[in-house]
Amino acid sequence: RKIMSEEKVKANYDNEPYRNEEFVVNYKDPFNAEPRPERLIQSFITPTEHFYVRNHAPVPDIDPDTYTLKIDGLVENALLLTLNDLKTKFEKVTITAQLQCAGNRRTMMSDYKKVKGVGWGIASLSNGTWSGCRLRDVLLAAKILPFETGAYHACFWGLDFGCPEDNGLPYGSSISVEKAMDINGDVLLAYEMNGKTLTRDHGFPVRVIAPGIIGARSVKWLDKVTVSNEESTSFFQRRDYKIFHSGIDWHNIEKFWDKNPSLQELSIQSAICVPAPNSRLYLPFTIFGYATSGGGRKIERVDISLDGGESWDYAELMGEDKGPVNKYWAWTLFKYTIKSIKADKATNIRLMCRAWDSASNTQPKEVKDIWNLRGVMNNSWHYVDVTVDPNTAKL
Amino acid sequence: RKIMSEEKVKANYDNEPYRNEEFVVNYKDPFNAEPRPERLIQSFITPTEHFYVRNHAPVPDIDPDTYTLKIDGLVENALLLTLNDLKTKFEKVTITAQLQCAGNRRTMMSDYKKVKGVGWGIASLSNGTWSGCRLRDVLLAAKILPFETGAYHACFWGLDFGCPEDNGLPYGSSISVEKAMDINGDVLLAYEMNGKTLTRDHGFPVRVIAPGIIGARSVKWLDKVTVSNEESTSFFQRRDYKIFHSGIDWHNIEKFWDKNPSLQELSIQSAICVPAPNSRLYLPFTIFGYATSGGGRKIERVDISLDGGESWDYAELMGEDKGPVNKYWAWTLFKYTIKSIKADKATNIRLMCRAWDSASNTQPKEVKDIWNLRGVMNNSWHYVDVTVDPNTAKL
Ligand SMILES: [Mo]
Ligand SMILES: [Mo]
Repeated sequence: RKIMSEEKVKANYDNEPYRNEEFVVNYKDPFNAEPRPERLIQSFITPTEHFYVRNHAPVPDIDPDTYTLKIDGLVENALLLTLNDLKTKFEKVTITAQLQCAGNRRTMMSDYKKVKGVGWGIASLSNGTWSGCRLRDVLLAAKILPFETGAYHACFWGLDFGCPEDNGLPYGSSISVEKAMDINGDVLLAYEMNGKTLTRDHGFPVRVIAPGIIGARSVKWLDKVTVSNEESTSFFQRRDYKIFHSGIDWHNIEKFWDKNPSLQELSIQSAICVPAPNSRLYLPFTIFGYATSGGGRKIERVDISLDGGESWDYAELMGEDKGPVNKYWAWTLFKYTIKSIKADKATNIRLMCRAWDSASNTQPKEVKDIWNLRGVMNNSWHYVDVTVDPNTAKL
Repeated sequence: RKIMSEEKVKANYDNEPYRNEEFVVNYKDPFNAEPRPERLIQSFITPTEHFYVRNHAPVPDIDPDTYTLKIDGLVENALLLTLNDLKTKFEKVTITAQLQCAGNRRTMMSDYKKVKGVGWGIASLSNGTWSGCRLRDVLLAAKILPFETGAYHACFWGLDFGCPEDNGLPYGSSISVEKAMDINGDVLLAYEMNGKTLTRDHGFPVRVIAPGIIGARSVKWLDKVTVSNEESTSFFQRRDYKIFHSGIDWHNIEKFWDKNPSLQELSIQSAICVPAPNSRLYLPFTIFGYATSGGGRKIERVDISLDGGESWDYAELMGEDKGPVNKYWAWTLFKYTIKSIKADKATNIRLMCRAWDSASNTQPKEVKDIWNLRGVMNNSWHYVDVTVDPNTAKL
């Protein structure tokens, strides 16, 4: 197999895998789909068939017997590793971690003022278990050079040639060497998801799992890891996945791209998955949703408001993620039961949530205050408008 | 010297050290004082004489020749260490880190609705250099027991007997063992500040420096470190320094104290130090301020608004903290020059700032949305109201 890192190819979508027909498809080719929100709160681990899919190109069809992974750049011993090498020469580690697209909840941002990017509802995130070897162990085997020599970034390239935004190159991205080498960072080269071999849509045979940071850095169908003194040169590192203030638009952005940092750690986030917007509900009913934070920070609190944020109450956290501290990679599901309302006839109510993490960070109130032209990191207070009938449901 | 951890004493303020008369004194006995805000932005390192002081009891007067530090609890070898042991038996490490009281900007929260606690303006934080040995190294020397045996918390007690809130006990607090033992956590047992022996007000002869977390955990005049399966039993860990939603008040709080986590990592914060509120300014003029985040997160952006947050521009960051990633313990000072305004006569303008960190977290807009009865972690958008004369100053 040729290493084709500079090869640019035209996208061909004739060989895509089968997908769950229940998905909400936001873009067909490349495939971008999220589960129906209620699928997220049905279990702590999202079943693979419901796990959101964010592709940037056709799904490669890789022969695991001939697959190799290259480790190069600022290392003493460049390595070429087979799938069997990854499985047998390095310790197998399993973690539970959510992945979340930085574009999660973009549609709500676009509803306020148009942004560019695939439209996503509230479900471009999911929670899974991942098994593989530590990127750290592989980089140690390759004798990564000291940080002081410029070994600052671990750059990943996929085998998904044909990304239209990057002239047919495969998807690429990078993370800091500090994160890659952190013994508590848990960055994996994963070959299993939810206890089974990775599926094609999720990066078979090997993908990066970089927990606590935006999904865009967890590169699928991994071709190589290059240790470099600069960030990935990919479009997706340099010209995407950055957050600007609302005064930056497509006319003046060029001079800001290189000045603005690329997104890494996820911010504090939560959303109500059930009930659905515009539901008609009878008492009592229960709100279900998710809360997440980046960097391994724990969800400490989820607040619920029924009056637009004037007053709050605590949701019940159904956290199954037990740390240790600063390794809370998974999400926390929450619920909150409403038994009565201050009305004697059917009333429109806005159900609202916001989360707090172990760094006392909380979500911004309004989307307008964080609007940005790429529509990333929309973590404004989430709400669902419903009609509540104070009577008990007539069965 | 007797270990007097259960001794309760009446506070006596007859032997307090000399203090800078320029301090804004928020409480006299115990001494609580912050510098004038403009002192903060005059240098990256806050001179010791201007470094904010937050005491909870009289300042102990400790003889360094007889001082000992006890390490006990869930360790195999309890240790009794002299100051000379700390200086000679363990590697000396120097870090630059800000300390910030969780009550910083409490007065602004109290202005919205009364809270309990020492009133602080915007300057109960400062940035210093700290030298000492790693708590990690000391705990390794004491053969700390494995995490799995229950070694979850590193509990600190000071020698500052006489805290009125805790019936005369000394000040106490704890951090997680994960933070204490993290090789990148940089928790120090410091004996120098800004290159000199610690002063009495800052914890002579030995204090904890736990960078990235609230100042309340960096216990001064350190008497002992106890590794425990539970958090510090101190009032200041269990009944203070916690953040509640606005519906919790002094009538219903009792059942929430134990359920709510104690504050650890600092959230994203910024404030304008210059110009002072109600200044009359001529064009051009420059805004100066600080931005900080917890957990070693980097300040990526500071935004300035002159129209109440409708539009923003980037401040210039004067960051001298060079990481590595996730070890940005110091603050970042910023500046922003205003050369013109849209008015031809003297106009009242609200200068507003907000910061963003490397986890894409930003400050909440309004204090009312984060109000809490202890008045902690007020990191709402900071503003200063001034009058700007569009003419150039007549000299
Ligand atoms: Mo993404
Ligand atoms: Mo404090």
